Amino acid sequence: MALTTLQCKSGAVRISQLSEETGVPVATVKYYLREGLLPPGERTAANQASYGTAHVERLRLIRALVEVGGVPLAGVKAVLASLEQPPGTLHDLLGTVQDAITPRPQRAGGPDWDDARADVARLVEDLGWQIRRDAPALDQLTDVLLAYRAVTGADLDPGACFGAAARTAAELAAAEVPNVTGEGPAETARNLVVGTVLGGRAFDVLRRLAHEDVSSRLLGSAPGGDGMTHNK
Amino acid sequence: MALTTLQCKSGAVRISQLSEETGVPVATVKYYLREGLLPPGERTAANQASYGTAHVERLRLIRALVEVGGVPLAGVKAVLASLEQPPGTLHDLLGTVQDAITPRPQRAGGPDWDDARADVARLVEDLGWQIRRDAPALDQLTDVLLAYRAVTGADLDPGACFGAAARTAAELAAAEVPNVTGEGPAETARNLVVGTVLGGRAFDVLRRLAHEDVSSRLLGSAPGGDGMTHNK
Repeated sequence: MALTTLQCKSGAVRISQLSEETGVPVATVKYYLREGLLPPGERTAANQASYGTAHVERLRLIRALVEVGGVPLAGVKAVLASLEQPPGTLHDLLGTVQDAITPRPQRAGGPDWDDARADVARLVEDLGWQIRRDAPALDQLTDVLLAYRAVTGADLDPGACFGAAARTAAELAAAEVPNVTGEGPAETARNLVVGTVLGGRAFDVLRRLAHEDVSSRLLGSAPGGDGMTHNK
Repeated sequence: MALTTLQCKSGAVRISQLSEETGVPVATVKYYLREGLLPPGERTAANQASYGTAHVERLRLIRALVEVGGVPLAGVKAVLASLEQPPGTLHDLLGTVQDAITPRPQRAGGPDWDDARADVARLVEDLGWQIRRDAPALDQLTDVLLAYRAVTGADLDPGACFGAAARTAAELAAAEVPNVTGEGPAETARNLVVGTVLGGRAFDVLRRLAHEDVSSRLLGSAPGGDGMTHNK
């Protein structure tokens, strides 16, 4: 908090100050340096280096992705690589970022999984969405559908499970995507990463809060007070 | 896959079959038994026990929460406890479930955090939402807001960050909450857990897929082909 932007810009910041400024422990900063997530600082003495604004910004982005977004370090690395050398179109960048932050599904394979995967492909087709056939997000949705089926013991149709949410997601995406464009390529790319990861996290929390609000209006009355209490 | 419901109902299933049926490794099943996430089986010999349908269902629910929902084991434990002894109203159960699966924020405290927390409280008030003042989801939203502010370096207003998403979340919640009621208290409680955790996961994936669809229409043309490519 104490550092001014000027001090950062002058590049005269040491690793302890970098840590203080970003809230990332020194040991973690060193780890990120070793792993190549942070570019090396400017060497100022045999065992001393100084860091600039770019390091502060990079660290804050890493921290947001890891701590709030829950993105694994390998995914963060891939995201940062795509920010350094962005693909030709914003659409390609979006694909790269999504794939980087989308963990591999844990249960892929087997006849149940293949059936569910085909059902998900059909859902996307019915929605008329233009999605790459091998998008990892399709595998993730397959995982969720399989989990629904396992928990309920029913051969749930993905349209019944996800149809309403898909239409809401489409509305949200139509509002969000055009807003991603920033003042330059770097800002646009950062907006895309932040919008995808933090925006997703924000929506999940807002959805839970909205559940609480709706529930307090519909279901919050005393037990037996209406038909919606569940254990009278 | 090979087990019939009848075999399960007869309670004659051994731990290896329980593992096969649910896809949860035997060592993990034993761990859940030790931790009390699964009730003990019926002892049939000195070092042998048999398990029934309730164990299969419980294991599938745990697996869905852990693997797909990413809920930490402590949260799963709290959720299962609330399913065993559900609170008086469905609204109370919803609060219990949400709190159980909502991890504690990592950065709470400090003047920046307190400011952001007050801004989040104001957002919820402006939206007219009825939320408990100490709901952990408010702390989580504070974390997300702080991360936005850190990454952008701007003192972002939560209304600007989250307003549109909040309105969409309210629409979605209005459609989702009334559908939670099942055939009995147990099913309703399970629907609530599944809807909150798997439904949240599903929406996040659907949102990313919808981004890809919108982006492929708006931004997917060849570099330089329109004004929305970002690095020509």
